[in-house]
Amino acid sequence: MPTVLIYWSPGRTQEQKAAVVRDITDTMVNQGGARCEDVVIIFQEIQPGDCARGGQIAAPQLMRADGSTPD
Amino acid sequence: MPTVLIYWSPGRTQEQKAAVVRDITDTMVNQGGARCEDVVIIFQEIQPGDCARGGQIAAPQLMRADGSTPD
Amino acid sequence: MPTVLIYWSPGRTQEQKAAVVRDITDTMVNQGGARCEDVVIIFQEIQPGDCARGGQIAAPQLMRADGSTPD
Amino acid sequence: MPTVLIYWSPGRTQEQKAAVVRDITDTMVNQGGARCEDVVIIFQEIQPGDCARGGQIAAPQLMRADGSTPD
Amino acid sequence: MPTVLIYWSPGRTQEQKAAVVRDITDTMVNQGGARCEDVVIIFQEIQPGDCARGGQIAAPQLMRADGSTPD
Amino acid sequence: MPTVLIYWSPGRTQEQKAAVVRDITDTMVNQGGARCEDVVIIFQEIQPGDCARGGQIAAPQLMRADGSTPD
Repeated sequence: MPTVLIYWSPGRTQEQKAAVVRDITDTMVNQGGARCEDVVIIFQEIQPGDCARGGQIAAPQLMRADGSTPD
Repeated sequence: MPTVLIYWSPGRTQEQKAAVVRDITDTMVNQGGARCEDVVIIFQEIQPGDCARGGQIAAPQLMRADGSTPD
Repeated sequence: MPTVLIYWSPGRTQEQKAAVVRDITDTMVNQGGARCEDVVIIFQEIQPGDCARGGQIAAPQLMRADGSTPD
Repeated sequence: MPTVLIYWSPGRTQEQKAAVVRDITDTMVNQGGARCEDVVIIFQEIQPGDCARGGQIAAPQLMRADGSTPD
Repeated sequence: MPTVLIYWSPGRTQEQKAAVVRDITDTMVNQGGARCEDVVIIFQEIQPGDCARGGQIAAPQLMRADGSTPD
Repeated sequence: MPTVLIYWSPGRTQEQKAAVVRDITDTMVNQGGARCEDVVIIFQEIQPGDCARGGQIAAPQLMRADGSTPD
C-alpha cells in the first residue's frame, strides 16, 4: 500500500502516463506520508460507451495540452 | 471519469486528504488531460492486518512530514 | 458474474438497500441478459471526507423520499 | 458518488448498456436517495476465461430477450 | 502487480488471514509465475447487509474449521 | 462473497489460470472458511505500461515454470 486504481478513457500517451505516475507518487509521498517504493498505480482504460454519468453514456472528453482531442 | 480509488492505511488527517485530493486532481488535469469537474477520488482505508506483500501481513508504515507516525 | 460494486456514502436504511438490490438485479436480468442467480451486488460505504470531485472533498448530499437527509 | 462498477462478460449491445445505465441511475435516485448527476457507472468487460465460480472457470451465459446468446 | 483484492465478510481471525495470505501468495508464485515480492493482497471486509446475490441480501455464511460460525 | 479481483499482466495460459482458480478457491474454503460455491474470482489483465511502482512504470516480469517469460 498505497494502491491507486485509475479508471479513465484511452488516448493518453506513454509520456502522459509516466508524468501522471511520477506526480501522483510524489503527492502520495509528500502529502500522504507514504513510502515511495510502496506506491502502486494501476491504469484501467474504459472504452467509450462503457462509462456514464447522470443516466447518460458519455463520449470521453479529453483535452490535450495543445487543445486537440485523442482519436 | 476519471475515477481514482486509493487504498491506504488509516491515520491521515483531513488536511492531508485535502492536499492529496488537490494535487492528484491537478495532475489529472495538467498531465492527464482530464476536465477538473470529472475527476472523482475515493479513499478506502484498509485496516492494519488487512494488507500484505510478499506473503507477509505488514504493519502500515507511514512517514509524516515531521517524521512522526500516525496513531 | 455480473458483479456490481457500489461506492456510496453511509446513511441508507436496510430497506433502501434491499430495494436497490432488487431493482438493480431486475435491471441486470431484464436489460442486461444476466441470470438472476449470477448477479452479485456489494455495497462499499465511503465515509464523509473520503470522497472528492473537482478537487474538493464534498459532504455527502443525500435526498430521501421525504426530502430529509440521513444522519 | 455514488460510483457503480459493473464487471460482466462482453456481448451486450450499446442499446442494452444504455438501458442498464438509465434504469440503474433511476434506482439509485428513487430508491437510494442519490442525486442523478452524481451517479457514475463504469462497465468492465471481463473476457471469457477470466471469471470463475466455485473453483471452475465458467463460460459466460447470457440470455438475450429473444433467447439467443451473444457471439 | 499482481494485486489481489478480496471482498468478504468480517469474522476471520488474524491467523486465518495470515494463512490465506501465505497460500494465495504461494499460488501466485508457483502457478501464476509472479515474483513473491510483487504480490499485494488487500482484504476488504463487507458488513452483513452490504452483500447480495440473486436479488436477496444474504446473511454471511462462514464455516470455521471446527464447524462453528464467527460472531 | 467472497469475491476476489486479481490485477496482473497478460501472458498466463488458460491452464495457469485454471490452476490459480483451483488453488485460491481451495485456500478460501480451507483457510478462510468460505463455501466453495460462493467464491468468485475475476482476472483483470493490465497492459504493459499501465502499472507502476515507486514512481516508475515497470515492464511486467513474469517467471514461467521453465524460466521463460510470456510474449
